[in-house]
Amino acid sequence: MQPALAPKNNVEQAIRQCGLFDDLSQTSLAHFVQSATTITLKKKGIIFLQDDRAEFFYLILQGWIKMFRETLDGTEVVIDILSDGQLVGETAIFEDTIHNFSAEAAEKATLLRIPTQILKQVIESEHQMALNMIQNITQKHLRQTHEIEHLNIQNASQRLGCFLLRLCPDANKKTAKIQLPYDKTLIASRLGMKPETFSRALAKLKAETDIEINNNMVQVNNQQSLVHYTCNHCSGSFPCQNNE
Amino acid sequence: MQPALAPKNNVEQAIRQCGLFDDLSQTSLAHFVQSATTITLKKKGIIFLQDDRAEFFYLILQGWIKMFRETLDGTEVVIDILSDGQLVGETAIFEDTIHNFSAEAAEKATLLRIPTQILKQVIESEHQMALNMIQNITQKHLRQTHEIEHLNIQNASQRLGCFLLRLCPDANKKTAKIQLPYDKTLIASRLGMKPETFSRALAKLKAETDIEINNNMVQVNNQQSLVHYTCNHCSGSFPCQNNE
Repeated sequence: MQPALAPKNNVEQAIRQCGLFDDLSQTSLAHFVQSATTITLKKKGIIFLQDDRAEFFYLILQGWIKMFRETLDGTEVVIDILSDGQLVGETAIFEDTIHNFSAEAAEKATLLRIPTQILKQVIESEHQMALNMIQNITQKHLRQTHEIEHLNIQNASQRLGCFLLRLCPDANKKTAKIQLPYDKTLIASRLGMKPETFSRALAKLKAETDIEINNNMVQVNNQQSLVHYTCNHCSGSFPCQNNE
Repeated sequence: MQPALAPKNNVEQAIRQCGLFDDLSQTSLAHFVQSATTITLKKKGIIFLQDDRAEFFYLILQGWIKMFRETLDGTEVVIDILSDGQLVGETAIFEDTIHNFSAEAAEKATLLRIPTQILKQVIESEHQMALNMIQNITQKHLRQTHEIEHLNIQNASQRLGCFLLRLCPDANKKTAKIQLPYDKTLIASRLGMKPETFSRALAKLKAETDIEINNNMVQVNNQQSLVHYTCNHCSGSFPCQNNE
């Protein structure tokens, strides 16, 4: 992990674009900007480990960050994979300032590192910050509710279909060409599948809907067919709203 | 649903015991107490439906409340089952005041019904209320993180074992006698299992650990064996902390 003083203009821009800091006073914003440090990580670089004291939280500037937990018998469970503009570890201030998961870079990544203590102070002192924090955690909660629903009732192919549909750029087009955001092993982990389950799910999805896969490119020839196969087994409807 | 004016003493006591209202000003507390109405519901009585406008949120005084969603093809997915002292529907104020799930009484139940508008007003006007709300949603978020982990890596028998261990009153005793809190069909739904999966999981759990089941009573003859079978496949350790 290589801390570096970033140009403050870029830092300020990234902070202003993140919903957590919406409508804050200039004083609080300046407080965050001045205390933020840019760090870069290589692939598999550890940001923090489960049960570490949460001295910092992070805003992802670029890259994919894997959040995971390890069971007593050593199995790694991927909880989430986050990307540009998303926050990592900010909820720890309400969990005895302990990170309840580990976080590492799934590929080369750049993040802003901000002291948790400052977030805590601003939440205590500025009402708008507390409201933003509620909004932030509520969105995470809602996303997780959907994920629990999917894990409960969708089969592996449908969960994979759902993952692909979220990457389709236009809900109204018949076809779509998608680049997989990270490697298939990681997609399998993110979807809670063993590699062999993932391969079977992919084969079934190809057979049931009109998709083709070539390395990390996916050609969806009939988006409606993929929607029909996947979204009938969901309480939402396509295209998903934010956080669904 | 039968609204009734409850003795205000009882209402006040229930509200004071709920963490969401900790350390609030007397004015805000009185506001909640005066606007709360006690309602009783028969088994399967609907509290609200998914996509209803959230005019009220609820504090469970007694009974089990099932929260669920329905998929496009009509399958019901149980998101959670809550009981005495827990809140239902309070997060809707940050979700465009729309309930994103349905709620019904799993058996006869009594709840306090409180206007969402008042919660919204107090969050806007009193900082402590906003802090309490953050704490409340963070705990839900943490509980869901554990649930996603379990759905990802535990098999059906382990998830059932986990459910039973949470009901064991004393982590240090060799044996435990547990009463199932609600019927087995509902436990299966809560654990995201079809009835036949639940039966197989129960049979396997009996074979692997020393438990006996008689109607709704479970005799755990070797708690350590149940812990070993279940908790090795979890990132936490037995006994669970709050919200795990």
